[in-house]
Amino acid sequence: MISIGVIGGGQLARMMIPRAQQLGLEIKVFSEADGQSADLATTVVGDYTKYSEIEKFAKTVDVITFDHEHVPAHLLEQLVAAGHRVQPMPTALKYAQNKLLMRKRLSELAVPMPKWSEVQTQSALEAFLSDHPEAIVKTPIGGYDGKGVRVVREVSDVSDWFADIETLGGSLLAEEKVDFVREIAVLSARNEAGEFRAWQPVQTTQLNGVCHQVISPAPELNSESAIAIARTVSESLETTGVMAVEMFETASGELLINELAMRPHNSGHFSMDACITDQFEQHLRAVANLPLGDTGQVANWAVMVNLLGQENGTRFIENYRDAMSAYPDVKFHNYGKQPRLGRKMGHLNIIGSDLDALILRIHNAADSLSGQ
Amino acid sequence: MISIGVIGGGQLARMMIPRAQQLGLEIKVFSEADGQSADLATTVVGDYTKYSEIEKFAKTVDVITFDHEHVPAHLLEQLVAAGHRVQPMPTALKYAQNKLLMRKRLSELAVPMPKWSEVQTQSALEAFLSDHPEAIVKTPIGGYDGKGVRVVREVSDVSDWFADIETLGGSLLAEEKVDFVREIAVLSARNEAGEFRAWQPVQTTQLNGVCHQVISPAPELNSESAIAIARTVSESLETTGVMAVEMFETASGELLINELAMRPHNSGHFSMDACITDQFEQHLRAVANLPLGDTGQVANWAVMVNLLGQENGTRFIENYRDAMSAYPDVKFHNYGKQPRLGRKMGHLNIIGSDLDALILRIHNAADSLSGQ
Repeated sequence: MISIGVIGGGQLARMMIPRAQQLGLEIKVFSEADGQSADLATTVVGDYTKYSEIEKFAKTVDVITFDHEHVPAHLLEQLVAAGHRVQPMPTALKYAQNKLLMRKRLSELAVPMPKWSEVQTQSALEAFLSDHPEAIVKTPIGGYDGKGVRVVREVSDVSDWFADIETLGGSLLAEEKVDFVREIAVLSARNEAGEFRAWQPVQTTQLNGVCHQVISPAPELNSESAIAIARTVSESLETTGVMAVEMFETASGELLINELAMRPHNSGHFSMDACITDQFEQHLRAVANLPLGDTGQVANWAVMVNLLGQENGTRFIENYRDAMSAYPDVKFHNYGKQPRLGRKMGHLNIIGSDLDALILRIHNAADSLSGQ
Repeated sequence: MISIGVIGGGQLARMMIPRAQQLGLEIKVFSEADGQSADLATTVVGDYTKYSEIEKFAKTVDVITFDHEHVPAHLLEQLVAAGHRVQPMPTALKYAQNKLLMRKRLSELAVPMPKWSEVQTQSALEAFLSDHPEAIVKTPIGGYDGKGVRVVREVSDVSDWFADIETLGGSLLAEEKVDFVREIAVLSARNEAGEFRAWQPVQTTQLNGVCHQVISPAPELNSESAIAIARTVSESLETTGVMAVEMFETASGELLINELAMRPHNSGHFSMDACITDQFEQHLRAVANLPLGDTGQVANWAVMVNLLGQENGTRFIENYRDAMSAYPDVKFHNYGKQPRLGRKMGHLNIIGSDLDALILRIHNAADSLSGQ
């Protein structure tokens, strides 16, 4: 039996567990704390920044993969040097871990991107702002869900980051603020043997920097060119596992790469109820170097919405009776987390043939579940 | 959080685990031995015929349900008397546990059945055989997958059962051997509140008494009348959870009830990849007395085939590479069992619009997976 070790005990690890079981793969999770989302398969609770702890875990499995990108790159390189299989390889993963490395590498590939600059000094940012009066400034490492990302009009908007620039790695990433008409994402997977498969690109909507709603497929999109960009990235970087490429679409139909993630991704949760093979099964197949599954969608449309923790707590289970009764066609995915304001607590999926009706219905279901 | 306790650690308990996790229900499994299919959620290994052991388990959960029907009825009644929730209730489950009780009760309901007789003596069986030269004789309790069922032409075919008749409960069940054109099954679910939902009836094919292939929906069937029979049974017996009603269809289109099961059932495995709500999620919703999910099918046709243990062992994982590569559209469900000749090791599902092509394709995939 192939044994997969997942570092990180969040909802992405949680949702890998059923598919590992289905395929007859063993799955073990290295969690940050007790009682995390992936509790069912947690075999170690530890600190993923300590090499000795992750190496001990790696010795109990055939391949290491991830729920998040936060394991320091040099520790992963050390694991590989010690003979452990790590998927995606740190040589690929570093581009998802470090946005500055990503921009540099993607520039070599000549894939479309926002204009960007590495800024190490306030005057360098000043110069960038003179060309782009509104910029997006990012810390290269450690940001997610809108953290480590700011809209900047004046250097003083990130003076705290400059004060701490050494801790942040010595540089910030400045990007032009793209005047996009919508955001899309291409989910794909690649295994070590080089097999590549993509799902249909999706349209994503963010709310306060957090993924809020996903529509699959993205309506009226040139899917082929979006997938071609993702494929270029995947094959050039030799990624393994699921990769999400988030893109801006401009009014002229241009697609510009915003972010990369090399793991199952929020924009792919729709696939759990909408596709022949979902992103969690595909990720496991890919990191085990098994052939990839069919990514076909079983309905014309799929819509996903995230369920975020509310101010008054989040009582999904208490509200199940009413919500399930009114929405028997909506799929409920509960991450088993303690509620916290704005925390991703779960998501809903719906599939069907009338997109407008599906969007209305799933948001009503989310309201019902949140007791609104 | 609602906590579900499943008695029995087989593949049915195994396949409940992902859906319990999805809904945010806690699931605990009482297994017969270490290393069973439902290992991931096994919290107790014990003997389900010992009241003290199952009562201790019952105290750790909110509701008890089942992977199999083998827990003695009087122990379940004792659990209920002690205040534990058991779903289905022993007052319903006894009709799935005891085929003679089932025939008696269904006769009161006037649902269509083969002619049958309770036989306590060899001469009583002799008399039944004079009207039905070929009969099916069953032990009332404990049979499954063809065990405890024999085709009988002479009393001597079951002389060993008569020699042991007291152990078998004092009676055998004799039924006419129905000249059926095919077998069908109706999967349905009912919760305590009385909500009832059925999937489309399926066509099943047995091989050596074991379910081999399932087609959903059963082609050219009067589905409404099949579902009406199942609904009468479910509502009259006040079943909770998933129920399978297996039926014979005769040349004239008559439907005769063959067997009942009050748990997820082999004939419902197709639903895992073919339906908005699968039988495992539905069973959990029903036994937790939550509203039931939509049973709609997402493709015109679904086909399932069982994977049985082979003489030369069963190396599904070793054969994954070739099988998955050739059949990316086929879903693999591995039960994580040690191979044994004829043992249910897993199943395959496929969905699509061309039934003949699907049947051919899934059997080819099964051969590939079995290394044939």
